[in-house]
Amino acid sequence: MAAEIAEQPAVLDRFLAEGLRDVTRAAGVVRDRRPRFALLAARGTSDHAALYAKYLLEVHLGVPCGLVSASTLTAYGARPDLHDVLWLAVSQSGASPDLVESTRVAREQGALTLAVTNAAASPLAAAAEQHVDVLAGPERSVAATKSYTAQLLAVSVLVGLMADPSTGTSRVAGLPVLAERLLGRDDAARTSARYRFVERLVTTARGFAYPTAREAALKLMETSYLSAHAFSAADLLHGPLAMIDQDRPVIAVVADGPGAEAIGPALDRLHEREADVLLVADEAVLAGWGGRRSTVEVPLPAGVPEDLAPILQILPLQQLAHAMAVARGHDPDAPRGLSKETSTW
Amino acid sequence: MAAEIAEQPAVLDRFLAEGLRDVTRAAGVVRDRRPRFALLAARGTSDHAALYAKYLLEVHLGVPCGLVSASTLTAYGARPDLHDVLWLAVSQSGASPDLVESTRVAREQGALTLAVTNAAASPLAAAAEQHVDVLAGPERSVAATKSYTAQLLAVSVLVGLMADPSTGTSRVAGLPVLAERLLGRDDAARTSARYRFVERLVTTARGFAYPTAREAALKLMETSYLSAHAFSAADLLHGPLAMIDQDRPVIAVVADGPGAEAIGPALDRLHEREADVLLVADEAVLAGWGGRRSTVEVPLPAGVPEDLAPILQILPLQQLAHAMAVARGHDPDAPRGLSKETSTW
Repeated sequence: MAAEIAEQPAVLDRFLAEGLRDVTRAAGVVRDRRPRFALLAARGTSDHAALYAKYLLEVHLGVPCGLVSASTLTAYGARPDLHDVLWLAVSQSGASPDLVESTRVAREQGALTLAVTNAAASPLAAAAEQHVDVLAGPERSVAATKSYTAQLLAVSVLVGLMADPSTGTSRVAGLPVLAERLLGRDDAARTSARYRFVERLVTTARGFAYPTAREAALKLMETSYLSAHAFSAADLLHGPLAMIDQDRPVIAVVADGPGAEAIGPALDRLHEREADVLLVADEAVLAGWGGRRSTVEVPLPAGVPEDLAPILQILPLQQLAHAMAVARGHDPDAPRGLSKETSTW
Repeated sequence: MAAEIAEQPAVLDRFLAEGLRDVTRAAGVVRDRRPRFALLAARGTSDHAALYAKYLLEVHLGVPCGLVSASTLTAYGARPDLHDVLWLAVSQSGASPDLVESTRVAREQGALTLAVTNAAASPLAAAAEQHVDVLAGPERSVAATKSYTAQLLAVSVLVGLMADPSTGTSRVAGLPVLAERLLGRDDAARTSARYRFVERLVTTARGFAYPTAREAALKLMETSYLSAHAFSAADLLHGPLAMIDQDRPVIAVVADGPGAEAIGPALDRLHEREADVLLVADEAVLAGWGGRRSTVEVPLPAGVPEDLAPILQILPLQQLAHAMAVARGHDPDAPRGLSKETSTW
């Protein structure tokens, strides 16, 4: 897991060097067919990449999206009319039977099917009409890391090219170097020492950063077996706020932009409740808030657009999950009860 | 909270007696406009009613659905083309500003807007073109109970009439009596004694029962401040299974039908890990499994169709949440840090 975390700058670089042909072709096909609606199918870590794609598609393309409940097509046999629908399936292995089967059904029902995987020879890549390989290389750790950031980069370039084919990759070109610097700083020694004995925590964010909160919670659950609960900061105020106390820290993820505005009130409520807040945030936002909304801070590079920030935000949180597992005496490379590929029907 | 839990059979009865005019008119308008997609907007408990509506719309109408990320329309100003789209907003109070604002935008963008609320005079009811009043009466407990089952009944009748106007209410007519009997049995004394000291638990289900797992987790968090994590049984196998151990019980909710088939493998994996499983399930399913997949059982009436079972499944879990809060010395009527109406932007 540590090696694959460290490999991410090179993985992002490789996608920008070698992945553009696939993604340009796929974006062109989507532009030609002008889908009215998008359905996103994924599970686990890939589901968080799909959620990121949902924000991109809704904000940049104005295409309303739904995350698929695969069981309606598989267990319940629903056969919806999917003309004008983009079906975007995201999967590291491309092997999950329910994803392959639901993609096959979606294609039969008229959807434009597009798979984003780390496995060009997988059944999912074969089932979908279009395929984008994220080129992360073999991922051996059960806890997915490099395949996740590669998925995020791939869908950000994909949706960027759908919106405007002339964009190219200028907006994302600087990310590998920023990722390298961020990983090199490694705040995890400091943060994992603080949260070493935590049994329950909450992660939160709004907008584009919300998938990061979800993925961070999953990484902590997978590797350290703690209860890590992700909430949109808006949903947090509708109930779960009751369970926050001084013994349950909150990890909040914030980029510079409307998401930072939107999460402010929730952070103020947490502050009133004397919650311990680890703020993983754009350093310009941290400077603006002057320490008022955080207990511990992990700064992210300033100047990264809010819609691209998730590609970097997760890096210190992957390092934290790894360091927490080691500090607690677990083997992050062999989480109990899990295997790398998960078959669900 | 206890009084409102007990009131539910009468609330369901009232909707069937007085709510049909609204719901028949709204269903007729939806049928005439033949939406190709549906977007569901809600937060908190109402979000679980919206998730239930998603399964109904996809399975019975073949209409693909998405749960709305309100921030894309509010914080990020996305303006998607929503012609042919049904926008279904679900809210107890009808007062949440982001829901009112996003519904207003959706209507401007061409969506057929339909609000399901417990407040006919609310801003949300005014913002939407169509309104269905769930007629649950004033709800004073912060933890929503009767408004939730009323929402479920309203959307089940609504989607039933969209699919076939001749159905009427024959499929749901028996539910108030079954609810009365189920509440009268009150298994919560037994189950709350067992789980009195639990700090972390997981709820799980598949398909139509998944909203029940989500809502049960929220009720337990709101009233007892424990970490209650809801996972689709399929997602559970993709990571979170690692955190299940003998000290973290699992509440599984199962109806009779394809959902029971689909959840079997996950329950077997939990059994291998010696997890403590509280199975809230159709008694025919429990009889068929012969105690092999459960530690404790709460039987639900047999013969209820899988798509209607959620209206009953939540009842013993509301009772459990209430009894757990009382046993732990909390006041279930006044959860710390929460108020009845939540304003989020």
